Amino acid sequence: MKEKNSISKYLPNKEVKKIKQFIKGKETPFLIVDLKKVEHNYNQLHSLLPFAKIYYAVKANPLDEVVKTLEKKGSNFDVASIYEIDQCLRLGITPDRLSYGNPIKKKEHIAYAYKKGIRLYATDSFEDLEEIARYAPGSKVLFRILLQGGNADWPLSRKFGAHPDMIYQLILKASKLNVVPYGLSFHVGSQQRDIGSWDNAISLCKYLFDALRQHKIQLKAINLGGGFPTRYVHSTHPLDVYTKLVTKFIDEDFPNGERPEILIEPGRSMVGDCGVMVTSVVMISRKSTLDKHKWMYLDCGKFNGLIETLDESIKYPIFWEKATARDRNTEKVILAGPTCDSCDIMYEKYQYKFPKGVKEGDKLFILSTGAYTLSYCSIYFNGFPPMKYYILK
Amino acid sequence: MKEKNSISKYLPNKEVKKIKQFIKGKETPFLIVDLKKVEHNYNQLHSLLPFAKIYYAVKANPLDEVVKTLEKKGSNFDVASIYEIDQCLRLGITPDRLSYGNPIKKKEHIAYAYKKGIRLYATDSFEDLEEIARYAPGSKVLFRILLQGGNADWPLSRKFGAHPDMIYQLILKASKLNVVPYGLSFHVGSQQRDIGSWDNAISLCKYLFDALRQHKIQLKAINLGGGFPTRYVHSTHPLDVYTKLVTKFIDEDFPNGERPEILIEPGRSMVGDCGVMVTSVVMISRKSTLDKHKWMYLDCGKFNGLIETLDESIKYPIFWEKATARDRNTEKVILAGPTCDSCDIMYEKYQYKFPKGVKEGDKLFILSTGAYTLSYCSIYFNGFPPMKYYILK
Repeated sequence: MKEKNSISKYLPNKEVKKIKQFIKGKETPFLIVDLKKVEHNYNQLHSLLPFAKIYYAVKANPLDEVVKTLEKKGSNFDVASIYEIDQCLRLGITPDRLSYGNPIKKKEHIAYAYKKGIRLYATDSFEDLEEIARYAPGSKVLFRILLQGGNADWPLSRKFGAHPDMIYQLILKASKLNVVPYGLSFHVGSQQRDIGSWDNAISLCKYLFDALRQHKIQLKAINLGGGFPTRYVHSTHPLDVYTKLVTKFIDEDFPNGERPEILIEPGRSMVGDCGVMVTSVVMISRKSTLDKHKWMYLDCGKFNGLIETLDESIKYPIFWEKATARDRNTEKVILAGPTCDSCDIMYEKYQYKFPKGVKEGDKLFILSTGAYTLSYCSIYFNGFPPMKYYILK
Repeated sequence: MKEKNSISKYLPNKEVKKIKQFIKGKETPFLIVDLKKVEHNYNQLHSLLPFAKIYYAVKANPLDEVVKTLEKKGSNFDVASIYEIDQCLRLGITPDRLSYGNPIKKKEHIAYAYKKGIRLYATDSFEDLEEIARYAPGSKVLFRILLQGGNADWPLSRKFGAHPDMIYQLILKASKLNVVPYGLSFHVGSQQRDIGSWDNAISLCKYLFDALRQHKIQLKAINLGGGFPTRYVHSTHPLDVYTKLVTKFIDEDFPNGERPEILIEPGRSMVGDCGVMVTSVVMISRKSTLDKHKWMYLDCGKFNGLIETLDESIKYPIFWEKATARDRNTEKVILAGPTCDSCDIMYEKYQYKFPKGVKEGDKLFILSTGAYTLSYCSIYFNGFPPMKYYILK
């Protein structure tokens, strides 16, 4: 018999049991964060790409507990602002383990980061490069290439990176300034489904490495960025398929021990499956007697945790607390959040199926909500507080 | 000579001067809120629709200072959650001035609201109605009609309201429960440009009033909801054109002293033009040497104040601090925010023009940012704090 789509596809029964026990008596909505899984994910990535220096993208889940867990594992950290720098330093992380990866920086913030000891910066423009040279002299700089982000679940825009021709010019310029043109970086798009994207990007890097060598500039590093997947509704290749192919792409372009230093910035793939959001059904209703679909309103929504459902980009696996693998009588519903905002609808085109027995007050588990949920919450929109969280012990 | 698009179209010179003085030495980004304007807007609406009971939609701008200002003017309040109820009560507003306008409510929250003295509720489903009857017995209920929200800047979905046929059934049901079927409510869509929308909605109300009278049910009130405009880039009719026509629509359908009690829930139109966001240019750059347009990165973005730029729905008037009415040499730019999120771009299709003299560190004024900005902010996404605010004295 074909296995049905059930929670056991994502979580072992033992864990589901533990979670059901844990949530008793707790007011929803909240997020449960499993630090053991964070450790597991770090270990897995480290063993699959042993030559890569891991820079965890703090923005994916900036909880102190998560950052601290990764710190103990030996991770480095990609920070997006001086506020994330302050957080990491407060947690006792030394500045040599931080990379200021946001190419958009106020000069005051560059100066602040430099004062705090940060010596690795990303850039994608002459304007920013000149300020790094001025306010963070002697630092290593990674130059971000602009890629197309097709086949990524969370869309990649043209916001970051510059055209390879301009990157080339930028590096020539850098070689005349008081900075170290250290390497290249790119981002293929978050939750990238096409592993070939890395192939193209790495080939571009190879091309630039060679072209710059003509000018006696030897780049040393490639930052592969993020893009590795976590587990949402539509499955991807397993992580080891990604890492094997990416390793192959690197070895093809940089054979015979020429491999540059490799950095990687996992966010979603490091913490996505470490979170389970627990929400209650506030109401199930119809708009008219002839309405084809019921509306199911939850106590979490776009503004308190699920902003990545914008354009229905990220499709989380969602299960009823009482679901069994044998549920037959299911129906499609539209899922919406609790605020008075008409755009607070999570899924209308893509319709989730639930057993007809689901009723008001029942709980749903929204899996793989460990990344890009907590810190995206609004501060009290419609009065609803930001999402609480619990650390699973 | 044709007047150019300048800040003086929106703010008198005196006010601009005052703001320029006020912002000196303050670190951006922040919002300036002008309470005198809130008072002015209340007075204006009250004098244009003297027969309407005003319920300010707290969610539009929930600052204590704003709510308190309106409380003193005699406003009532539309609240979206028990948290907004708690806020209003904390500020000394009596519960008879509150309407719990969110049709999506946990039963525990209905019971809580009832305990706190709330006796006016909105609903759009049998499920919610039955819970109101059970947990808030004897309360007045407004039934929300589902409308199409075409021609509104901020899109109206099918999330709220029920089909008129179902509203009819709901009210029949209500007449057999321990609640008072008090009236109808609707929402034509926020920043609605087509005043005819109210005509259609009011006619629907008239039809339902008549149909229900056959069952000896006399509805008493119509809640016109929100939808009146504030001043963004694309101009609308002035408020008095809206109010005159809406009054006419009501009088046509309810002539000869039959006019029901009229409620109105202004949010955007009450506070939109009471806020000026002050932001700094973090960087201006290009993606390639042949790039047609420059990118201008600001220190505020989608996640710290400007979420309503989603799909470029709301287009705020934006001006350079040093702009003069004589600026000739302007160019189009793409406007993006400070986070590392690729979707943090405010305007790419609709391109704002700025004088070529704008440079990094300069300030921009984003006008009409008094509604749906502060409380929509994320809590520390990418580490960036929620937006600060100052009250203009």
